[in-house]
Amino acid sequence: MSAAETTSQPAEIVVMKFGGTSVAGPEDLKRAAARIVAERERGSKVVAVLSARGKTTDDLVRQASEISDRPEPREMDMLLSTGERISCALCAMAITDLGHSAISLTGSQAGIVTDSSHTKARIIDVRADRIQAALDGDNIVLVAGFQGVSTDSKDVTTLGRGGSDTTAVALAAALQASVCEIYTDVAGVFSADPRIVPDARKLSVVSFEEMLEMSASGAKVLQLRSVEYARNYDIPIHCRSSFESGPGTLVVSENETMERPLVTAVAHSDQEARVTLAGVKNEPGMAGRIFTALADANVNVDVIIQNEPVSTTHGADLSFTVARDDLRQAVEAIEATGQNSDEILTDERIGKVSIIGAGMRSHPGVAAQVFRVLGEQGINIEMISTSPIKISCVISSDRVDDAVRALHESFGLGSESVHEEEPTGVHHRARVGQ
Amino acid sequence: MSAAETTSQPAEIVVMKFGGTSVAGPEDLKRAAARIVAERERGSKVVAVLSARGKTTDDLVRQASEISDRPEPREMDMLLSTGERISCALCAMAITDLGHSAISLTGSQAGIVTDSSHTKARIIDVRADRIQAALDGDNIVLVAGFQGVSTDSKDVTTLGRGGSDTTAVALAAALQASVCEIYTDVAGVFSADPRIVPDARKLSVVSFEEMLEMSASGAKVLQLRSVEYARNYDIPIHCRSSFESGPGTLVVSENETMERPLVTAVAHSDQEARVTLAGVKNEPGMAGRIFTALADANVNVDVIIQNEPVSTTHGADLSFTVARDDLRQAVEAIEATGQNSDEILTDERIGKVSIIGAGMRSHPGVAAQVFRVLGEQGINIEMISTSPIKISCVISSDRVDDAVRALHESFGLGSESVHEEEPTGVHHRARVGQ
Repeated sequence: MSAAETTSQPAEIVVMKFGGTSVAGPEDLKRAAARIVAERERGSKVVAVLSARGKTTDDLVRQASEISDRPEPREMDMLLSTGERISCALCAMAITDLGHSAISLTGSQAGIVTDSSHTKARIIDVRADRIQAALDGDNIVLVAGFQGVSTDSKDVTTLGRGGSDTTAVALAAALQASVCEIYTDVAGVFSADPRIVPDARKLSVVSFEEMLEMSASGAKVLQLRSVEYARNYDIPIHCRSSFESGPGTLVVSENETMERPLVTAVAHSDQEARVTLAGVKNEPGMAGRIFTALADANVNVDVIIQNEPVSTTHGADLSFTVARDDLRQAVEAIEATGQNSDEILTDERIGKVSIIGAGMRSHPGVAAQVFRVLGEQGINIEMISTSPIKISCVISSDRVDDAVRALHESFGLGSESVHEEEPTGVHHRARVGQ
Repeated sequence: MSAAETTSQPAEIVVMKFGGTSVAGPEDLKRAAARIVAERERGSKVVAVLSARGKTTDDLVRQASEISDRPEPREMDMLLSTGERISCALCAMAITDLGHSAISLTGSQAGIVTDSSHTKARIIDVRADRIQAALDGDNIVLVAGFQGVSTDSKDVTTLGRGGSDTTAVALAAALQASVCEIYTDVAGVFSADPRIVPDARKLSVVSFEEMLEMSASGAKVLQLRSVEYARNYDIPIHCRSSFESGPGTLVVSENETMERPLVTAVAHSDQEARVTLAGVKNEPGMAGRIFTALADANVNVDVIIQNEPVSTTHGADLSFTVARDDLRQAVEAIEATGQNSDEILTDERIGKVSIIGAGMRSHPGVAAQVFRVLGEQGINIEMISTSPIKISCVISSDRVDDAVRALHESFGLGSESVHEEEPTGVHHRARVGQ
């Protein structure tokens, strides 16, 4: 061994995550394997986290639905966790054929330790010794995403849909990886959904805070939890396309962001629903009781508005929005707490449009511009929610596309406005605002 | 708790194993679950070992073949082991719906510890603490068959096709179960394959020794290794149909066998091949070298014949039979040992017919009758192999059915001859002699 080799830097660790469409068919899977090998041949040590192939998870869910209407969560986890293992074993075979050593590990073998909340477990520890040993042994390591092992009962757990992103970021943090690359069927994070806004621009850099707001506002390119995890451990995320080369979008901590535009992107969601409790009883702790019940039912509440009670005899009206899929559960949870209000009203024709930008912290005029633009379009704003870097408006679901287009235009986010390359090609189906 | 309860016998443990066709469709799987629950409700503690559903394993093998021509054995095991896990998770759901507690365990979780021979691992220990704890907690336990965890590297291993039978028997031994019930799509062990011999008789009792010979002679109803394991630990096996009730065939140690007929069954195989080494060099240790190479290549050699060398210059001719699937591997293994003989000849049109019976130990005339019957049919006997309770004849594969029928008739094994109930119904596709 030469002196130059002994004094060389230890190889950087790169974590690469491939989503279900990126490993769907044999050619897709081999393409992912080739990407992984190329990264290894650049000198990095590589850990790749894979999702289940294409429709595998849907097929497993179907098998469960044929057996039981209410499958046991523990058994759902045992069932669903097989999908990612299949992807990893196959990818290890493909990598071996390309002349590199590879081993696949289950979430449990990879040291992903979680709590016992089956089907929605949270990672509480990553014991990466076995991965580290495999990397030291010159292996490429494939890790089954979306799953772990519960700390108490040693049962297989899953992290919920999209949990593979979180697996990847958690491993990147534990291994002190230089970057966590998330490969999907979109080329990065866009200034709006290009299916709605044809001149939407691929963003080169986004801050963790902006990405968090985007994920919370309906952008599906990255799972919210994985962005939180990356921010907490300061792991740069690189969102890239599996189907084409070239850089995607870097998600980094804010001080690394080159520019801080007033508004970065328009996100949207048309999968919202609103619950209104009319005439909530004027008792101390009532709101706490209601939202505790919703949290216990695992319902994420988004925008909340409470009107002042008009009199001491007539209670306030309390409205909040939830994901449409959670509506039934939300109503059942509230009803289970007893008679808290005169009436429970629901509205499933609710959408949300949000503008996000780190620069708006110091520019109070942004909200006014949003309201004016929507007003000019004749779009009624039903609820408003703001953070220092986000303004969300709850509107009728059938006006969401119009709102996205008008806001994108008004804030000059398009590629024509900023002279950047226009996204083209079939795989540029960006997910911001879906 | 009443005095009667405290002094009652501890519940017996029953191990039930369901093959792939027994859990193929949703209705099949629910039927298996109902069988398991019925056994539980009779008061037994139940451990059920399941195979992968229907074509699941074939589908996984296909996925691997789309990726690699020579998939890594370690990764094949990771891949294939998912099939049984799916069956177990789904069956646990079905049992829960029937009002009983059930948990599924992987081979690793169930404590099936194996060596590291991927795709053909051998069980070296069964650490059944977790199963025992689950049974004590009033659970029905579903165990993924065919798989374990390697003792050194903690990798997922598989026991080879049909390994679920071995899983079931090994668990029955470790748990001191009263019986290991093997549920398949056939009603039991028959005196011959009913597809060839319409009046073949379902046997009510067979000894381990007879069953070993039958499994080794082509009967597929039970895997050879599982019968060996059952004999070593004296675990009664009950071969039954998943699709109908009523007793099947009990496989027990010989002293429990009620009757000891001269001949119990005719078994056959038409999946054989013969290798002949013509003019084997006359060197000490030559045969040892050849068969060591075959064993190292994991080729099971069946019948072996060596002619005396006709002169000191011309070597002996050495012939042996192998499973037809292993032929290529066998020839490659021999060629790799160097130039041992003048020529290597192969014959893929080879079949085997065997008669098995514990009673023939004390009746030397059986072999003569076999040869006479085959001679009367004009069937040429190419090789002969005997044990105290078995006579096998290697014959042309296209005469196997004729040989089975003639021997079955000659030894009076049919249901008409012995006045037992004739097997009927679509599921009576017995496997002896396949």
